[in-house]
Amino acid sequence: MSGTSETRIAEIETTLRELATIVKRRGRELMYVFDITPPQFNALLTLSENGETTMGGLCERLHFACSTATDLVDRLERHGLVRRERDRGDRRVIRLRLLEQGERTFKSVLAAHRAYLERVLRGVSNEELEVLEHHLQRTCSLLHSCRIDTGMVKTMS
Amino acid sequence: MSGTSETRIAEIETTLRELATIVKRRGRELMYVFDITPPQFNALLTLSENGETTMGGLCERLHFACSTATDLVDRLERHGLVRRERDRGDRRVIRLRLLEQGERTFKSVLAAHRAYLERVLRGVSNEELEVLEHHLQRTCSLLHSCRIDTGMVKTMS
Repeated sequence: MSGTSETRIAEIETTLRELATIVKRRGRELMYVFDITPPQFNALLTLSENGETTMGGLCERLHFACSTATDLVDRLERHGLVRRERDRGDRRVIRLRLLEQGERTFKSVLAAHRAYLERVLRGVSNEELEVLEHHLQRTCSLLHSCRIDTGMVKTMS
Repeated sequence: MSGTSETRIAEIETTLRELATIVKRRGRELMYVFDITPPQFNALLTLSENGETTMGGLCERLHFACSTATDLVDRLERHGLVRRERDRGDRRVIRLRLLEQGERTFKSVLAAHRAYLERVLRGVSNEELEVLEHHLQRTCSLLHSCRIDTGMVKTMS
């Protein structure tokens, strides 16, 4: 790797970390108004996108420990956003269903996110938005397609 | 807002959320190998960049509740990464100092982050990296410069 691209990589690393932090912070600030937390929002999102899900399926999708998911679903159920239901075929399996109030909360948070982003990007031309989106998506897929090589990291630790 | 840019905003919102999630996840996976958590890494980063910091200063920079910061600093101190020291001028004030082992851990994590990103971006040309970095930075500053309008969000909740 040449000196220039080494500096470039270091800069991109810093920027990506900063970007992830500010995106997460703005999300948390916004959800706070709706009285939900980011993991709760992610659970509602998963249920809205995938329909009914088992507890195990939810843990897997959200990379949660099962104890964390139980607490989280308890709270969502208490607030009337989701409901636990026993599977008709296999009574041992518990499925989660998004209730109307949950769908409404989820959609409001999403709309508020978009309204905020619309303000953020107001001064940006359509052409630039297109290029910007392309690069954000490209970065996203590159990161998804390349896993952490634990063995290599261990030699550095 | 026209239909097209409405769709565009919705897409960018999804992509930004996904990007933040994968960046945070890869960071967590990598730090796991070094036996530290992302908030612990952020504390080391703050101390490395700003030198000695008071507990209050650390909480402010990391947007932590003070009880969270106390637990976190306890753990870092137990692992020999930082040390609490009383201020010489004002004995009531506690300052945090990054120890040699802390600086070493911090630098190793950063190097591993960069090595990972170098692998991620290996197939991307220098020209494209420049454009990509520009857009990531631009998105970052736009988000930083535009706060959540809590009043507006409340009307949507």
